[in-house]
Amino acid sequence: MSRTVIHGGLVITASDEIHADVLVEGGRIAALAAHGTDAAASWTADRTIDATGRYVIPGGVDAHTHMEMPFGGTFAADTFETGTRAAAWGGTTTIVDFAIQSVGRSLREGLDAWYAKADGNCAIDYAFHMILADVNASSLKEMDLLVAEGVTSFKLFMAYPGVFYSDDGQILRAMQRAESNGGLIMMHAENGIAIDVLVEQALADGRTDPRYHGDVRKVALEAEATHRAIQLARVAGAPLYVVHVSADEAVAEVAAARHKGLPVFGETCPQYLFLSTDNLAEPGFEGAKYVCSTPLRPREHQEALWRGLRNNELQVVSTDHCPFCFSGQKEMGRGDFSKIPNGMPGVENRMGLLHQAVVDGHISRRRWIEIACASPARMFGLYPKKGTIAPGADADIVIYDPAAEQTISAETHHMNVDYSAYEGKRLTGQVETVLSRGEVVIDRRTFTGRAGHGMYTPRATCQYLD
Amino acid sequence: MSRTVIHGGLVITASDEIHADVLVEGGRIAALAAHGTDAAASWTADRTIDATGRYVIPGGVDAHTHMEMPFGGTFAADTFETGTRAAAWGGTTTIVDFAIQSVGRSLREGLDAWYAKADGNCAIDYAFHMILADVNASSLKEMDLLVAEGVTSFKLFMAYPGVFYSDDGQILRAMQRAESNGGLIMMHAENGIAIDVLVEQALADGRTDPRYHGDVRKVALEAEATHRAIQLARVAGAPLYVVHVSADEAVAEVAAARHKGLPVFGETCPQYLFLSTDNLAEPGFEGAKYVCSTPLRPREHQEALWRGLRNNELQVVSTDHCPFCFSGQKEMGRGDFSKIPNGMPGVENRMGLLHQAVVDGHISRRRWIEIACASPARMFGLYPKKGTIAPGADADIVIYDPAAEQTISAETHHMNVDYSAYEGKRLTGQVETVLSRGEVVIDRRTFTGRAGHGMYTPRATCQYLD
Amino acid sequence: MSRTVIHGGLVITASDEIHADVLVEGGRIAALAAHGTDAAASWTADRTIDATGRYVIPGGVDAHTHMEMPFGGTFAADTFETGTRAAAWGGTTTIVDFAIQSVGRSLREGLDAWYAKADGNCAIDYAFHMILADVNASSLKEMDLLVAEGVTSFKLFMAYPGVFYSDDGQILRAMQRAESNGGLIMMHAENGIAIDVLVEQALADGRTDPRYHGDVRKVALEAEATHRAIQLARVAGAPLYVVHVSADEAVAEVAAARHKGLPVFGETCPQYLFLSTDNLAEPGFEGAKYVCSTPLRPREHQEALWRGLRNNELQVVSTDHCPFCFSGQKEMGRGDFSKIPNGMPGVENRMGLLHQAVVDGHISRRRWIEIACASPARMFGLYPKKGTIAPGADADIVIYDPAAEQTISAETHHMNVDYSAYEGKRLTGQVETVLSRGEVVIDRRTFTGRAGHGMYTPRATCQYLD
Amino acid sequence: MSRTVIHGGLVITASDEIHADVLVEGGRIAALAAHGTDAAASWTADRTIDATGRYVIPGGVDAHTHMEMPFGGTFAADTFETGTRAAAWGGTTTIVDFAIQSVGRSLREGLDAWYAKADGNCAIDYAFHMILADVNASSLKEMDLLVAEGVTSFKLFMAYPGVFYSDDGQILRAMQRAESNGGLIMMHAENGIAIDVLVEQALADGRTDPRYHGDVRKVALEAEATHRAIQLARVAGAPLYVVHVSADEAVAEVAAARHKGLPVFGETCPQYLFLSTDNLAEPGFEGAKYVCSTPLRPREHQEALWRGLRNNELQVVSTDHCPFCFSGQKEMGRGDFSKIPNGMPGVENRMGLLHQAVVDGHISRRRWIEIACASPARMFGLYPKKGTIAPGADADIVIYDPAAEQTISAETHHMNVDYSAYEGKRLTGQVETVLSRGEVVIDRRTFTGRAGHGMYTPRATCQYLD
Repeated sequence: MSRTVIHGGLVITASDEIHADVLVEGGRIAALAAHGTDAAASWTADRTIDATGRYVIPGGVDAHTHMEMPFGGTFAADTFETGTRAAAWGGTTTIVDFAIQSVGRSLREGLDAWYAKADGNCAIDYAFHMILADVNASSLKEMDLLVAEGVTSFKLFMAYPGVFYSDDGQILRAMQRAESNGGLIMMHAENGIAIDVLVEQALADGRTDPRYHGDVRKVALEAEATHRAIQLARVAGAPLYVVHVSADEAVAEVAAARHKGLPVFGETCPQYLFLSTDNLAEPGFEGAKYVCSTPLRPREHQEALWRGLRNNELQVVSTDHCPFCFSGQKEMGRGDFSKIPNGMPGVENRMGLLHQAVVDGHISRRRWIEIACASPARMFGLYPKKGTIAPGADADIVIYDPAAEQTISAETHHMNVDYSAYEGKRLTGQVETVLSRGEVVIDRRTFTGRAGHGMYTPRATCQYLD
Repeated sequence: MSRTVIHGGLVITASDEIHADVLVEGGRIAALAAHGTDAAASWTADRTIDATGRYVIPGGVDAHTHMEMPFGGTFAADTFETGTRAAAWGGTTTIVDFAIQSVGRSLREGLDAWYAKADGNCAIDYAFHMILADVNASSLKEMDLLVAEGVTSFKLFMAYPGVFYSDDGQILRAMQRAESNGGLIMMHAENGIAIDVLVEQALADGRTDPRYHGDVRKVALEAEATHRAIQLARVAGAPLYVVHVSADEAVAEVAAARHKGLPVFGETCPQYLFLSTDNLAEPGFEGAKYVCSTPLRPREHQEALWRGLRNNELQVVSTDHCPFCFSGQKEMGRGDFSKIPNGMPGVENRMGLLHQAVVDGHISRRRWIEIACASPARMFGLYPKKGTIAPGADADIVIYDPAAEQTISAETHHMNVDYSAYEGKRLTGQVETVLSRGEVVIDRRTFTGRAGHGMYTPRATCQYLD
Repeated sequence: MSRTVIHGGLVITASDEIHADVLVEGGRIAALAAHGTDAAASWTADRTIDATGRYVIPGGVDAHTHMEMPFGGTFAADTFETGTRAAAWGGTTTIVDFAIQSVGRSLREGLDAWYAKADGNCAIDYAFHMILADVNASSLKEMDLLVAEGVTSFKLFMAYPGVFYSDDGQILRAMQRAESNGGLIMMHAENGIAIDVLVEQALADGRTDPRYHGDVRKVALEAEATHRAIQLARVAGAPLYVVHVSADEAVAEVAAARHKGLPVFGETCPQYLFLSTDNLAEPGFEGAKYVCSTPLRPREHQEALWRGLRNNELQVVSTDHCPFCFSGQKEMGRGDFSKIPNGMPGVENRMGLLHQAVVDGHISRRRWIEIACASPARMFGLYPKKGTIAPGADADIVIYDPAAEQTISAETHHMNVDYSAYEGKRLTGQVETVLSRGEVVIDRRTFTGRAGHGMYTPRATCQYLD
Repeated sequence: MSRTVIHGGLVITASDEIHADVLVEGGRIAALAAHGTDAAASWTADRTIDATGRYVIPGGVDAHTHMEMPFGGTFAADTFETGTRAAAWGGTTTIVDFAIQSVGRSLREGLDAWYAKADGNCAIDYAFHMILADVNASSLKEMDLLVAEGVTSFKLFMAYPGVFYSDDGQILRAMQRAESNGGLIMMHAENGIAIDVLVEQALADGRTDPRYHGDVRKVALEAEATHRAIQLARVAGAPLYVVHVSADEAVAEVAAARHKGLPVFGETCPQYLFLSTDNLAEPGFEGAKYVCSTPLRPREHQEALWRGLRNNELQVVSTDHCPFCFSGQKEMGRGDFSKIPNGMPGVENRMGLLHQAVVDGHISRRRWIEIACASPARMFGLYPKKGTIAPGADADIVIYDPAAEQTISAETHHMNVDYSAYEGKRLTGQVETVLSRGEVVIDRRTFTGRAGHGMYTPRATCQYLD
C-alpha cells in the first residue's frame, strides 16, 4: 500500500485549522500529525508533497451537476469525461449528477442510462440524484429501491410544465414517500405555470432578448414556490432541500422555515453570488451566456445570499453546472429567449470563486470548506468518506495556494464550452495539486489523472437528519 | 516528553466523527491515526488508554462560572479549588470565570483579586471575563489594556440596579469601546428597573415565595432587554453575546438579529433546558434551590431553546455555575424571595446533561461537542488550544462512556453545595477519564488531579468575528 | 312619495352612534335629525316607527351566498325566494350571490341563467359576482363586459380540481385582466390538488367520517394557497379578496401582505368564528352538518379571526350561505365524507351572531356594522346606496332590539333547510323590523314583504381602491 | 336659538360621503338632509352658507400642541390666543394641549397653570393632556383625580434625561395606574440616555450643525424605545399611544404589536410625512428650522408612514405644534445643535397638507377626515361631540374648497412665528369658512372669531378601548 505524506501545510476543515502533516495510506487518510512532532517525523512515504505556505483542504463536493444533459433538443456540452476532468482542475473531487427519468419510463431505466454514461469515463468519484419527471404509483415504489441502492435524493420541478413539472399532488406523494424511505426531496422552486404565461406574453409583445428571461421569472414566483414546497413538505412531514436559491425573498422563506424548526435546507450557486441581471442585459446576444433558471437576479440580492450562507440559512454552494456553447447552442434562442438552453458552466470555478469570497471577507476559511465540501457531503450521505480531512476519510485532498493569482478565461479553462461566465475575473488563490483517493490527479497544475479512475459512490441518506 | 496513546475510541469533534487513535506528546495532541493503520500501529507510548466503545471528546469549555462570587453578603459556595475539581469530574477542562469590578474601583483591582483567588488552586485551566460594574472614562480606557492582556470579554448588566446595573449610556459607551478594541460585550439582558418595581409590589402584596421570583422577572422584560441590547450594539457597531437566554421571545430576538446579519450571539444553560417554573413552585421552600436570574421559565419555553440550539440561533451552553447551599444561604430568602441568593450549581453536570440531550434526540453528537466545547472556545478566543481534538491542540480530552448509567445526586456530586438541582435524574452516559494538557486528572472515575495544575490562559478576541 | 319616520332610536353606522330620528322619503333616507330638535319635531310622516330603546342600523349586506347552487348532483336548498326571505328575517337587505360559468360555456350564459333564477323572486335587493370556472381567451374578454354591466367581481378556485379549479396560469391571467378592467378577484384559497391526494388516502384508509373532512383540508394548505394567491396578485398588480378565511396562518398571510401595503382583503364567516372541529367530530353522522370548505378549524383559531376583525386584517364577515338538508342531501356522504355536499345555512343568522359578538366583547358596535354592512357594500361597489344610514342612501334599515333574547333553531328559522348549525344557541338581541328601500318587509317579527320586491343592483368597482 | 343651514356641499366623515345640507341649531348639528329633498327644502334659517362645490367636513382635532411651552429657557412662540386663532384659520376647531408637571411639583399645580394660560384666550375649543415629569407615589394618586376631571391622558418621556425623562420603573408604575383608572399613556419613544451620549460625542467632535441633530437621534433608538414602551405596556396590561412616530422601524414595532392584538396606537405628524433630513441639511443654519424630536428622517421613511396611515397601523396625525422663531430662538443653537429649541410650527397647516395627500393619492378623502378629526376625537374621549358631522355633534364645521390653490408662506400664515417649515409649498384645496360650535369664526377667509370663544372641554377616556 503506497504512502504519501503531505507536509507543512495548513489543514482546513469545516471546524478546524490545523498545522499538520497528512499521511495517506492507499486511498485513505491514515493520520494527521502536528508539524514538527515526533509522530510526524517518524513517517516514511513513497511520495512527499510539500505544502508549505499552502492550504490542505478536502476535495470539493459539487452536489449539483448536469453532464451531457439533454435539453431542448441539444445536450449539455460537458461529457462525464470532460466535465469531471475540469472538476478536478478546479479542486472538486466528487460530483453528484442528476440521472433523469423520462416521462412514461421507469426510474430504473433512467438511472441505468446515467450509470452507463458515466461508467469508465470519470476522472473523479461520482454519485447520482434522481430526477422524478413522472411521479406515479410505480415510480413512487421505485424510490424505495433507489434509496436502498444509494440514490437517496430525488429532484422535483415546480417549473417546466410538460417537461419535468410535477403538480402539487405528485409533489406531496413523492414527499410522503421520502418521509417513509429516508430520501431527500430536492426542489426546483419556481412557479412554472405562471412563468409560462409571462413568457408567452413577453414573446407576443416582442420582448425576446435574453434579459427578458430574468424579467419573466420573477422573484415573487421563486419565493411563492419556495413557500409552497415548504408547506407541502410540512404536510408530508418530510425534509426539503431547495436547489439554486437565487432571490432574497426565497432565502427569507427558507430562513423562516428553519426558525420554526422545519428540516428545510437551501443551496445557492456561484452565479447568483457573483453575477446579476447586469450580465443578462449585456449588449448583443451576450446575455444568453447567463441564461439559467432560477435566473440571475439584480445585484442587491447577492448580499442576502452571502448573509444566508454566513447564518447557515443556506447550507450548500453547488454549481448547477450545465454548459451549453454560445455558438450553436445558446444561439438557438436568438429572437426567442425561451429557446436559449438553460444552464451555465461552472464546475471548474466553484472552489476558486468561493476562496475569493474568503479573500473578499464574505465568509471565513472554515465556512468555505463547510459549504463547498463538508455540508454537501453530509447533506447527501457521503460523509465521512468525502468532505473532510480526517483519519479514515477518502484521501480526496487539494493543495491550495492561497496567494497565487489567476484569471478565469475560456482560453485556459478545461470545461468543454466556448465561453466562461466569469471571463477575465481575477482571483487570488489557485488549486495546485489534487489527490483523488490517494492518487494525484492534478500535479502542480498538470493533469495526471485518467478517465475511469473516478468510481461510482453509493450514498447514505441525509446526515443532517440524524 | 511523555507519550500517551488513546486507542480504539470514536473521536468526536464539532464537525467529525472519526474512528481514530489519539497520540499525546507532552501536553498537546500530536497526532490522530485511523484505527488499524500502520501509522497507528507504529506508535509507542508511556501510557495507553483503552477507549474501545467510548467516545473521545474535547474537554468541555464552560464559559460562564462564578466561583466564590460575593452576592448579597454571602459567597458562592464553590472555591476555585472545589469548583474546578468538580468541573473535571464532569468532563470540563476549561472554565472562564467572571472577575468583578467593584463600584468606584478599577478593573485592574478587580481582576487582580480574581487572579489571586484562582492562582494555585485550580484543577483545570481557567481564564477570565471582566464584569464592568462601573463604566466611566477610566474603566473604559482600562478595557483596552485588558483586551491586550487576554481578558477580551466584558459583562454588563441591565438588571440589578445599584449593584451591577449599567444604564443605556454606559452600555453604549462600553460597546463603542469594544467595537474599537476587539472586545466582546456579554449582556445580562433583563429590564432590572422594571423588575424591581414588580418585586417591590409582590413583596408588599405578600407574594414572597420563591415562585414569585419567576413571576416578576417576566418573559417580556427579558425579551425587551435583549431587543434593547441588540439595538444599542447596532448603534455602536459592536458584536453582542447575550448570556443565559431563557425565554422563547428572547431567542426570537436573537434569531431576528442574526437573520439581519448582525453579529449577535446567544448562550443558554442546562437549567433552562431541563428545569422549569414547576421546580420554582415546589412545595415548602424547595423552590429556592432553583432561584437564578434570568429565572426558570414555563416548560414550553424549552422547545424554543432546543430549536435555537439546533438552528444555531443559540451557539453556546454554559452553566452560570453559582452555587449557594440551601442551608444557610438559600434560606436567607425565607419570607422574601428577593433575598434568596441567585444562582445554581451545575459545572459538574453540563456535559452529561447535554449528552442526555443527544440520547433524547434533541441534538446530534457533533452539535453536543460544538455547543459545549468548540463554540465557547471559539467565541472567547481559546481556539484551537481548547475545544477540539486535533493535532496541535491542548490535550484536554475526555473519555466518555456513552452507555454507562448514572444518577445525579448531591450525595455523589463533587460540587461544594448541599443539594443538586437535578437530584435523582438518571442519565445515560458518563465521564470515565479526563486529561488536562496531557495529564490524567480523572482516571476511570478517580480524581488524580491536583489544585494548581490548572493554568491561567489568556485569550484572543472572539473568533467568530474573523 | 310616502314618508316614514323612525324615531327615538340609536342610529349606528360604521363610524358613528347618533341619537337621531330618521326620515325616509320614498325608497331613500331623506334626513337625520337629533332627537328633540325642532328639525325632528317638524317632520310629518305617513308612518312612524317607534325605535325607542332600539338600534337603527343599516340593513346587512351579505356578500357571499349561493342560492340554488348546483353541487355534486344536488342543489343548495334555498331558492332565491326562500333564501332572500330568510335573509330579511335576519336583518340582511342585500345579498351578492355567485353566478356560475360552466366549463366550456360563456360567462354570459351563466350570468343570464342566474338573472333568470333570481328575477321576480327576491324579497330583498341582490347583485351578482361571477364564478370563473373556465378561464380562457374568450372568458377573459367577457370579464370587461361584465364589469361594465355591474358584475365587478370574479371568483376563482384553487380547490375543486375538475370542477371550479383554475391553475396558476389561469389565475394570473384573470388577475391581469382584473388589473386592467377594475374588477376584483375573489379567491377560494386552498391547495385542492394536494387536498385531493389526502382525501384519496383518507378514504383508502377507511377514514371516511365527516371529521376527516377537516383533517385533510389542512391549515398549511389554506395558508399556502393564500400566500400563493397574494404572490400572483402581486405579479399581476391586482387587488385580491380572499373568501372564507378560516385558519390563523391564513390570517397571518393576509396581514403580512397588508402590512407591505398590498391591496389584499380578507373575509371570514360566522361558522369559523362560532364553530370548530368539535362540531365536525359530533357523534354519528351529525358532523356532516358542519361540512364546508374551507373547513371548520380547531377552536383556538377563533381568537386569530376575532383579532383579525378587530385589527382590520379581515374586513368582511359574509355567510357563504349554501344550505343542504341533512336528510337526503348531507346524507349522500355517509361512508365517504368527500360526497357530503359542502356548505352550511347561515344567511338568517349572521347579523344576530355578530351582535352577540358585541355582547361578548369581541367587537364594538360600530365594528359590527362595519364588517356586516359598510365594508361589504364598499368592497363590492354598493356604497353609498347600501351599508350605511345617511341622507341619500337607500332606506334599507333594521330596527334591532339589543335586549331581546332569542334561541336559534331549525324549528323557528326561515331558511329552507332541516337543521341549524347553531341549534339551541341563545343570543341577546334580535331583529325587530326591517325596511328594504323604504318598504317594511319585516314588521315587528312578521314578514310583510314579497317575492319580487327585491331588485337587481348593478355594482361599481371596489371602493377600497379609490 | 339661531339656525344656520349649510347647503349644497359634500359632507365627508370618516365613513361617509353624503350630498346633504346641514342644519345647525345653536351650537350643535341638528339635522342632515339629502340635497333636494322635501326635508331639506322645509328648513328655514337665520343664516345660509352656500357650500356648492365645497366639502363640508368636521373641524380638525389636533391632539398634540404645545402653546407657550417653556423649553430651554425660552417659550414656544404661539400663545393660546395666537395659536388657536391660527388653528381656526387652518380648519382645526379643537386642540388638546399638554399641561406640564414640574419636577417636585404636583400635577394639580401644573394643570392649573395651563388652565390659567388658556382661559379666556382661545378662539376654538381646547382640552388638556398632562405631562408627567415626576412620577412618584403622590403624582400617581393624582392621576386618578385628573381622569375623573376630564384629563384622561398622560405623556411620559423616554428622552430628555434631567428634564421630562422617566425611567422604566416610573413608566411601568404610571402604566399600571392608567390600567386601573382608564387613562391612556402617551409616549415620547426615544432612548434619550443613549442619545445624550451620542450628542456629547458629536459636539466633542465638532459636529455641531443642525443636521447632526438628525444624525444622533437614530432610527434604531426610536425603534428601541417604541419596542420597550410596548413591552412595558404589555406587562402593565395598559394601552399605549406612541406620539410622533417618525421612523419606518418604529411603525413596524407598532404594527407588530397591533397584529398581536395589543392595544397600541401610533401618531405621526405632517413634518415626517412631507419633510426629511434633506431639510435639516439645508445650508447655513437653515436646518435649525426643522429641528424637532423625534427628528426628521431620510425621505424613504415617508412611504412607511403613509402605508401605516392607510393600513391603520398609525391612527392619528397631529402637529406637535411647538413653534420657535428662527430669529432669537432657533439661533440659540448656533454652534451647538443641542441648544436649538426643539419644535416646529404647524397647527395651521395640518388639514391642508393632509388634503394635499388626498390630491396626491396617498389617502382617501374619508381617511383624511378619520386621521385628522374622527380618530383623534375618539382616541382622546371627545367623541361624538367632536370629529364628525352628525346630528347631535358640536357644530364644529369646515367648508373646504377642494379646488382652491394656496401657497404656504410665513408672510401669509397666522402663527406667531417668523418662518414656515413649508415655505413656498403649493397646495390644492383651502379652508374657506369655519364654524366653532355654530359660530362662524372664519368667514370666507376672514377671521370673525374672538379670543375667549373657545371653551375648555373635559374628556372621556379613550374610546378605542370600549
